[in-house]
Amino acid sequence: MERFTEKVLDTKLVFSGKFLRIRYDHVLLPDGRKATREVVDHPGAVAIVPVLSDSRIVLVKQYRYAVSDLLLEIPAGKLEGGEEPVDCAIRELKEETGYSAAAISKLAGFYTTPGFTNEFLHLFLANDLTFGLQHLDEDEFICTESYYPDQVRQLVKNGRICDAKTLLGLSLAGLL
Amino acid sequence: MERFTEKVLDTKLVFSGKFLRIRYDHVLLPDGRKATREVVDHPGAVAIVPVLSDSRIVLVKQYRYAVSDLLLEIPAGKLEGGEEPVDCAIRELKEETGYSAAAISKLAGFYTTPGFTNEFLHLFLANDLTFGLQHLDEDEFICTESYYPDQVRQLVKNGRICDAKTLLGLSLAGLL
Repeated sequence: MERFTEKVLDTKLVFSGKFLRIRYDHVLLPDGRKATREVVDHPGAVAIVPVLSDSRIVLVKQYRYAVSDLLLEIPAGKLEGGEEPVDCAIRELKEETGYSAAAISKLAGFYTTPGFTNEFLHLFLANDLTFGLQHLDEDEFICTESYYPDQVRQLVKNGRICDAKTLLGLSLAGLL
Repeated sequence: MERFTEKVLDTKLVFSGKFLRIRYDHVLLPDGRKATREVVDHPGAVAIVPVLSDSRIVLVKQYRYAVSDLLLEIPAGKLEGGEEPVDCAIRELKEETGYSAAAISKLAGFYTTPGFTNEFLHLFLANDLTFGLQHLDEDEFICTESYYPDQVRQLVKNGRICDAKTLLGLSLAGLL
């Protein structure tokens, strides 16, 4: 481990927005040379694969400004201060889709893009769903669509589902 | 589509480093209100699941500064200007592991974290590997480790493999 570790020499917050915090650090490389590292600080997030009793999967469709496109994804959201991932998953599922889950289990936990951010995502499978009302954030415009597994596979095949956490969630849930 | 689209009002480059470019944009929401969006611009990337003739999978171990840990991942790298993803995959595989692939096929293509970056990752499966020499970038310190599928599943199970593209690559290659 030690021979690969990079030591931080100094750290500077170069951008702090509503959502992103960017650090620009100088580090000491394992061979003694210096280099710079740019990091997007992130509070962590959850994503949920919601499966209805008739086997349909509930997906959310939303415009993703960063990619200038409308994407079909599993429900997801950021952890709020001190929140347990499973509580966040239950909250985000309810807020984004209106569904409450009586059964929720962990599928995986992973860094989304460790090359430049510390975002860690907790992935859950949700079953025994009961429908209520959506409670979206004020700048969220989301609609839900539910698809049978063979429809989901078709959406993946033709590139309509093209989001990493969604593909991984579906794959780990045995749906791909 | 139209009723979900966000229109850009103005865009400002708030950070431009060696690796990251951060935009801070004002947008018009579908309901006519205004909001801000923060985007990490990214050139796109590739990742490769390299499978040896004895069924072992070649992984790379490297210190990831953003997460302050040594991670075990499939080989990956950023697209260079105008480079075709498949050429980038062949190049990165050779540079990071020393292996040349006689057979390479596409597994998937996806946005890594569309909530805040336009990074699109092209995922490949590589077979018929011939060993040569690594050619690392000057600030890369990477070692390769090869594992049989049951060892890989154990590494996933105990959390030693915790990187999204690696889990997705292994899952889509039928190894999880």
